[in-house]
Amino acid sequence: MNYSDLIMKKRDGLSLSQAEIEFIVRGISDKTMPDYQVAAWAMAVYFQGMDEEETTQLALAMARSGDIVDLSQVKGITVDKHSTGGVGDKTTLVAVPIAAAAGVPVAKMSGRGLGHTGGTIDKFESIPGFQAERDYDAFIRQVNHLRAAVVSQTGNLVPADKRLYAIRDLTATVESIPLIASSIMSKKLASGADGIVLDVKVGRGAFMKDIAASRRLAEAMVSIGHGAGKRMVAVLSAMDQPLGFMVGNALEVIEAMDTLQGQGPEDLTELSLRLAAEMILLGQKAFKLTEALEISREMLASGKAAHKLNQLIAWQGGSWNEAGPAYGLPQAEIKAAVNAQQGGFVRSIDAFAVGRAAMHLGAGREQLGDIIDHAVGIQLLKKCGDEVKPGEPLAIMHYNLPQRKTAAQQLLNQAFVIASTKPALQPLIIDVIRAE
Amino acid sequence: MNYSDLIMKKRDGLSLSQAEIEFIVRGISDKTMPDYQVAAWAMAVYFQGMDEEETTQLALAMARSGDIVDLSQVKGITVDKHSTGGVGDKTTLVAVPIAAAAGVPVAKMSGRGLGHTGGTIDKFESIPGFQAERDYDAFIRQVNHLRAAVVSQTGNLVPADKRLYAIRDLTATVESIPLIASSIMSKKLASGADGIVLDVKVGRGAFMKDIAASRRLAEAMVSIGHGAGKRMVAVLSAMDQPLGFMVGNALEVIEAMDTLQGQGPEDLTELSLRLAAEMILLGQKAFKLTEALEISREMLASGKAAHKLNQLIAWQGGSWNEAGPAYGLPQAEIKAAVNAQQGGFVRSIDAFAVGRAAMHLGAGREQLGDIIDHAVGIQLLKKCGDEVKPGEPLAIMHYNLPQRKTAAQQLLNQAFVIASTKPALQPLIIDVIRAE
Repeated sequence: MNYSDLIMKKRDGLSLSQAEIEFIVRGISDKTMPDYQVAAWAMAVYFQGMDEEETTQLALAMARSGDIVDLSQVKGITVDKHSTGGVGDKTTLVAVPIAAAAGVPVAKMSGRGLGHTGGTIDKFESIPGFQAERDYDAFIRQVNHLRAAVVSQTGNLVPADKRLYAIRDLTATVESIPLIASSIMSKKLASGADGIVLDVKVGRGAFMKDIAASRRLAEAMVSIGHGAGKRMVAVLSAMDQPLGFMVGNALEVIEAMDTLQGQGPEDLTELSLRLAAEMILLGQKAFKLTEALEISREMLASGKAAHKLNQLIAWQGGSWNEAGPAYGLPQAEIKAAVNAQQGGFVRSIDAFAVGRAAMHLGAGREQLGDIIDHAVGIQLLKKCGDEVKPGEPLAIMHYNLPQRKTAAQQLLNQAFVIASTKPALQPLIIDVIRAE
Repeated sequence: MNYSDLIMKKRDGLSLSQAEIEFIVRGISDKTMPDYQVAAWAMAVYFQGMDEEETTQLALAMARSGDIVDLSQVKGITVDKHSTGGVGDKTTLVAVPIAAAAGVPVAKMSGRGLGHTGGTIDKFESIPGFQAERDYDAFIRQVNHLRAAVVSQTGNLVPADKRLYAIRDLTATVESIPLIASSIMSKKLASGADGIVLDVKVGRGAFMKDIAASRRLAEAMVSIGHGAGKRMVAVLSAMDQPLGFMVGNALEVIEAMDTLQGQGPEDLTELSLRLAAEMILLGQKAFKLTEALEISREMLASGKAAHKLNQLIAWQGGSWNEAGPAYGLPQAEIKAAVNAQQGGFVRSIDAFAVGRAAMHLGAGREQLGDIIDHAVGIQLLKKCGDEVKPGEPLAIMHYNLPQRKTAAQQLLNQAFVIASTKPALQPLIIDVIRAE
């Protein structure tokens, strides 16, 4: 077997066998497959695709390229939740406590944000004292005790994916559904959970811009997970406008806690309840969706979910003030409104532009290693369908460095499209794809 | 401009501008474009192709990436001749002396062989004392004096192509018509001749296996040369069976000299006369093909072409014995026949297999840097359409190392296909493509 022949095989549209895919992944991990051959193979996959079996084998081989988290010491059916990345997407902070409060063990490893989307770990780290790095024993102990832990990825997880992704990022081979699906799923498989709820975002603020492509990605990921023996479900949800009103790390934590206290925005509440319900179903704490949704609502209404988030934060060293303003989280020094240039109805809010604006204010990273400011971000005052008067504020920028304002303001002005008639609202949850 | 965006542009099927192609070629030359981006770009070109303008710009930019041979001191219209590589293809040794004898200045830079095809320089170097390396002044002086020189490529010719080809060779991106065409033509453009006669081989022993692909390659190369201001013609010739009877360096020189003395095989004579006639047309020593062919035949019949080859060899330090057996060239110690396993008519002779057999005997290089044995090779006794009796010899292997025999013999046995009926013979010259 040699890399050149395998590139040719894929180039010519043939399927690679399990042994061939394992050979490639081993070569990517141990660097015996040079960068240029990895790049050429990725481009051949971009054009020729991979079938279900190949995609599953790729994800499995990549998962096995490094450590696989052993969750066998956790009691019950462990469930993970993953979002493909959106703007203002703080559902993990809401859905995980709901599911955990319902008894589903959630041992979650999460990432930091890059580009226009935020990362769950960055959000938690806006809480003073919060520790995202936990060693394995502490992680397992916490899950067994609280039913929930959210830690940053540590150890040598999926080294093959790290190298492959770095090369794809520079060779215009990111936008390949089998490569995206196997990259995401390799990390989920390595994270060791029994069930995985995927939130696949669709729209301008998402990686996938159209429903057909998102559905194919969701199907590919569900198929991989199912092929690897996992309980799988993927929810397709709209990401044309940001989710909720808050974009930025501390701001999103505040909104998540508000939501757990029954004071959250409608869209965030709806999606979080649904994702939690799907987690409850996979974790077999309910056997029908209506029942699972009922449990989710009950966890919210009873305050049990809010209490779970408090417990999780405290357990991981975070200290906040449940009663104080903004729960005692860091707040930006400057606030400035972006006003409507005309009256009418908000037709659309470009989530990508809002995400970029928040990044410009310091909430996100342009590149790996950039320092982020947990306090800054954007607070939307209007969402799609809302009526606005000329000059009325659409959003408030929260920031600390005055020179960051102009670029963000321009992006936000462009992000809002105001029309004279009230637009028809699109559903938030577009589709749900289950294994089998 | 950045490489990743240009890869994406090509991936998405768009044409790259002249400036974009020059940017890429500069990046390939000065290595600011990393291997993996070169590989991904080449694979994107493999799938999306390049239009005429892009292909021409790529060849021109690669030609300009290194030295361009200055032939302005050569009097007259200089003409080069290039073959895409075949088995037993010694037409350069016949056509160049004919054209030069007719007054066409031929300043030829040639390569060494690799794989199953031989290289013209290797063939000349089978002549004791022959010097393929000449400095620039000596090269120009020889062309002005003799009208002909055949030297090995020296100096810093097309460094971009060298790097690009090395990467393509390992990434399954060799078989791309625009990349092949621009690679060949970049070298021809850098070689500085005013006119170029291309011999594009088609068939099992050639790089291009089918006529349609060969025609597209020929058209692409003619278009590049024309776009670069060169006089161009491409002859498509069959390479299913080897050309002539001899395969191997000294053996091919012997057969070439036989041909110049009017004793050559019919196919080699026909193709060499035609290629020489096309050189004479491009060099404006004749203005009609019939006239050019007439001149070619006259150069052969009069002995002037044979004299020209003698002059060229002597001028470059070679010594041979025109009257002695095998012209005094090295001969192999062992000769062994390969016999027909059944009677009938030779239906086909797989030129690729014959080329591989010769390589196994030591006539060619498996890898760059392998030492070759000039004396060894294969002498065919039968060609397509010939009748054979059971047990009658089909070919003679000439070799020096007994352990080389078995592999070559197996390949030769497989190469010959014997059928009970006489096959219809295919034409040697399939098509001729001219600029405009």
